[in-house]
Amino acid sequence: MSFTAKHLLGIETLPPAAITALLDRADHYVDLSRSDNKHGDALAGLTQINMFFENSTRTQASFELAGKRLGADVMNMAMQASSIKKGETLIDTAVTLNAMHPDLIVVRHPQSGAVDLLAQKVNCAILNAGDGKHEHPTQALLDALTIRRNKGRLHRLNIAICGDIAHSRVARSNIMLLGKMENRVRLVGPPTLMPSGVAELGVEVYDDMAQGLEGCDVVMMLRLQRERMDGGFIPSEREYFHRYGLDADKLSHAAPDAIVMHPGPMNRGVEIDGAIADDPRVSVIQEQVEMGVAVRMAAMDLLAQNLRAARAAQGAA
Amino acid sequence: MSFTAKHLLGIETLPPAAITALLDRADHYVDLSRSDNKHGDALAGLTQINMFFENSTRTQASFELAGKRLGADVMNMAMQASSIKKGETLIDTAVTLNAMHPDLIVVRHPQSGAVDLLAQKVNCAILNAGDGKHEHPTQALLDALTIRRNKGRLHRLNIAICGDIAHSRVARSNIMLLGKMENRVRLVGPPTLMPSGVAELGVEVYDDMAQGLEGCDVVMMLRLQRERMDGGFIPSEREYFHRYGLDADKLSHAAPDAIVMHPGPMNRGVEIDGAIADDPRVSVIQEQVEMGVAVRMAAMDLLAQNLRAARAAQGAA
Amino acid sequence: MSFTAKHLLGIETLPPAAITALLDRADHYVDLSRSDNKHGDALAGLTQINMFFENSTRTQASFELAGKRLGADVMNMAMQASSIKKGETLIDTAVTLNAMHPDLIVVRHPQSGAVDLLAQKVNCAILNAGDGKHEHPTQALLDALTIRRNKGRLHRLNIAICGDIAHSRVARSNIMLLGKMENRVRLVGPPTLMPSGVAELGVEVYDDMAQGLEGCDVVMMLRLQRERMDGGFIPSEREYFHRYGLDADKLSHAAPDAIVMHPGPMNRGVEIDGAIADDPRVSVIQEQVEMGVAVRMAAMDLLAQNLRAARAAQGAA
Repeated sequence: MSFTAKHLLGIETLPPAAITALLDRADHYVDLSRSDNKHGDALAGLTQINMFFENSTRTQASFELAGKRLGADVMNMAMQASSIKKGETLIDTAVTLNAMHPDLIVVRHPQSGAVDLLAQKVNCAILNAGDGKHEHPTQALLDALTIRRNKGRLHRLNIAICGDIAHSRVARSNIMLLGKMENRVRLVGPPTLMPSGVAELGVEVYDDMAQGLEGCDVVMMLRLQRERMDGGFIPSEREYFHRYGLDADKLSHAAPDAIVMHPGPMNRGVEIDGAIADDPRVSVIQEQVEMGVAVRMAAMDLLAQNLRAARAAQGAA
Repeated sequence: MSFTAKHLLGIETLPPAAITALLDRADHYVDLSRSDNKHGDALAGLTQINMFFENSTRTQASFELAGKRLGADVMNMAMQASSIKKGETLIDTAVTLNAMHPDLIVVRHPQSGAVDLLAQKVNCAILNAGDGKHEHPTQALLDALTIRRNKGRLHRLNIAICGDIAHSRVARSNIMLLGKMENRVRLVGPPTLMPSGVAELGVEVYDDMAQGLEGCDVVMMLRLQRERMDGGFIPSEREYFHRYGLDADKLSHAAPDAIVMHPGPMNRGVEIDGAIADDPRVSVIQEQVEMGVAVRMAAMDLLAQNLRAARAAQGAA
Repeated sequence: MSFTAKHLLGIETLPPAAITALLDRADHYVDLSRSDNKHGDALAGLTQINMFFENSTRTQASFELAGKRLGADVMNMAMQASSIKKGETLIDTAVTLNAMHPDLIVVRHPQSGAVDLLAQKVNCAILNAGDGKHEHPTQALLDALTIRRNKGRLHRLNIAICGDIAHSRVARSNIMLLGKMENRVRLVGPPTLMPSGVAELGVEVYDDMAQGLEGCDVVMMLRLQRERMDGGFIPSEREYFHRYGLDADKLSHAAPDAIVMHPGPMNRGVEIDGAIADDPRVSVIQEQVEMGVAVRMAAMDLLAQNLRAARAAQGAA
C-alpha cells in the first residue's frame, strides 16, 4: 500500500502516491455513505477520541460520524480553555488519554505545532484536525477529492486560492497538496493578507481578482478569519466584498466550466455572494462537506490498518 | 401501513389511522425497553443527528436513547445561541448537515415554523422535538399512549388541559391529537393564559378548576412557562397555586379513577402539589417519561421504513 | 460469586472477598483493553447513563470508554449547576431518568450522600463516581489494582497517603480499602489538612514527610483541593511544596523499590515534583489511569450480572 504513515499530521510529509491512495479509498466511502446501510466495520473493536481545543461544529461532526460509521467506539472530549494554558498540561492530558488505550486521537488545537508535539507522546495514531496557522490536512484532502471528482483529474489544473491566505491553515495545506500533484496555484488577495515567504511556495500572487481568476478551473474562496487577526489590518466587510468577494462579475473571468469552493462556514456577502454559493451550476460547497466525511473515513481506515500491522509486527518480533 | 409521512413535523397533518399505527408500534417498544436486551436493529446502518437549539435534557435524552436502542449511529450537535441569530444560518447549518447523509434529524428550535422550513431543505426525515409555540408532536403522542394504556381507549374521554395554555406547544399538539381521536377536551386556566382563537379549536373553556375538572377522566397539567412570557401577565406563584395548582381538593372534582399527567419538568407547589405528583394511585407522570422513549422509537422506526421504501422506489424508477 | 452488591456506592460496605473479585475481573479487562479488539459484549443490550454534576474530564471519560467497550448504549447527561439547587430536583431528575429504563447510572455529585440517596429511588445499578468528601470507590479500586500488579500482593504493605487528606474522598475510600486488606496505612500532611476523628481510622499520622515515608512500599500523593477549602488554611504553593511536596530527597526515605501514585490531575511543583511524576522507575501514575478503565469495566460487568440475576429471579418468582 502507498499510505504508510503512522499519523496524519499534515500534507507536507505526504508523498503524492499516499495522497492518491487516500483519495481512492475515500471514493469507496462516498458510495457507502450514500447507501441505506452506511455502517461498516473497518474500525470495529477500536477506540477513537476527539479532542477539540477549538470549537468546530462541522469538523468535529465529520470526524465523529466517520468513526461511528466505521464501527469505532467514539468519545468526544470537551477540552476547556482553562486546561490549555500551559504546554505541560497539554502533554499531561495527552499522556493520560493515551493510557486509556485509544487507537486513534483526532486533535484540533489553536497553537501551530501542538498536534505534532502530541504525536510524539502517544503510541496511537494522531489525526490533525487543524493546528493554529499550520496545517489542516483532511480539509486539503477533501478539497482534492472534490476537485478530482468534478474535473476528472487532480493535475495540470489552474487553481486560484482567494482571500485571507495569511491566517489560513486551509490555504497552507492546499497549496502544498495541489503543488505536489502538479497543479498551477495562484494566490489572490490583498497584500496585507498574504503570508510572508510566499515566493518560496511556487505560486503566483495576484492583488486583483479579475487577473487572478483569468481562465481558472477552480476558484477556492477562504473564510475571512477575523478571530485570528491580532492588531493588524482589518478591512471593512463592505470594502472587502467590493474588491475581493466572489460575485458573478469576478467569476466571469474564470473558465466557463470553473467550480467554486469554500471550506465553510461562509460569511455571505463578505468573501462570497450568497447567490454564487447556492448556484448548483458552479458551487460544489455542499459536496465538499460530503467528501469531508468520506476522506476522514478513508484516513482513519488506512491509519488503523497501519496501526494493526505495526502491532502485529511488534508482536511477532 | 397507515403511517405514510416523510417527516414528523406536527400532529396537525396526521390522520387518526397514522396516530393509531404509531401508538401500536410504540406498545411493542415499551416491552423491548423493559427487557434485559433493550437493543434492537430497526435503525441499524442509519445515522441520526440531534440538533437542539434549545436546551432540553429530558427530550434530548429520550431521543438519544431511542436511537441508540434501535442501533442507529447517533450524534448530538451542541447548537450555540450565536449560530441561530439569522434564519440564513439555520438553513446553512441544515444544508451542511444534510450533506453528511444523515437519515434522521431531530430538531428543537425556539422559533415556530423553523422545523418545517428546515424539512424543505433536506432529503432525510425530520422529527420536530418542539418548535416555539407551534407543535411538539412526540409529546402529544406519548401522552396519548399513556392515556390509552391507562384508560383502555383513546376516544370518548373527558380530558382537562390545565394552566398556561397560551405559551404551550404541548397543549396545542395535544388539543389537536385528542380532538382527532374524538375526545372531549376542556381548557382550564386564567383568561390571560388562554390562546386567542380558542373558539375555533372545538374545546370548552373554563376559568375555574372545580368546574373544569368536574367528572374528567384525565387531568393534564402544564408547566408554567415563565421563560416564554414577555412583558404580559406574570402571576405570583402562591396566587397561581391557590387558584390553578392541582391539589387533592381540586382533584376531588374529577372522576374517581382520573389520572394526573404533567409533561415535566414540574414546578412543585406552583402548578401541582408535590403530593399529588408522587401519588402512584393517580399520577402517571413517570409512565409518561417511559412512554416517551417508546413513542420516539416507534416514530423513528416508521419514518426509517418510509425512507427506505422511498429510496428503493427511486432506485427502481 | 463473591461480589453480590446491587450498587457500587462506596468501599465501606464491600467485604474483602468482593474487592478481590472485582480486581480479578479487572485484570481480565486490562488484557482486553491492550488488544486490537477492545470491544466486548458484557453490557450488550443494556443502557448506561453518566450523570456528572461536577466536571471531571478524566473520570467521565474512563466510565464512558468502559461502557462503550463493553457494548452498552452509553449516554452522557450534562447536568447544569442550576438543576442541582434543591435536593428535590435531584430526586426528580433521578426518577425521570429511571423511567427511561437505564440499567446502570454513573453519578458524580458535589454533596456527600447524594449518590446513596439516589440509589434508593431507582431500580437500576448505581455507581458512585465521587460524592462530596464521602467516597470515590472506583478510584480506590484502581489504586488497589495498580498496587497489586506492581507489588504482587495487596496486603502487609506499608502505604503512605500524603497531603490534603481532609478534603479527599480519594483518601477516605483508600484508607478503608487498604485497611480491609490488612495493610499498614500512614497519613502524612499538615495537621490543618487532617480530617477530624482520624484516630478511629486505624492509621498512623505524621506531620513530617521524611518520618512518614520511612520504609514505605507505596507513596500515594493527593491533589491539593483548593476548590474545596472554604475559609480555612490555604498554604502558599511554594511553602507547601517545600514541606510536603514529593521530591527525590523526601522519596529517598521510602523503600528502595517504592512506587509513587497520584490520582490526577497533578499540580506539578505543588504536591509533586514533575521529575518524580515522569520517572518510569518509580511513577505508576499513567498505569493508574489504565487500571481505571479496567476497574470500571469490571464493576459494571459484575453489577450487570447481579442485575440480570435479580431480574431473572423476580421473573421466576
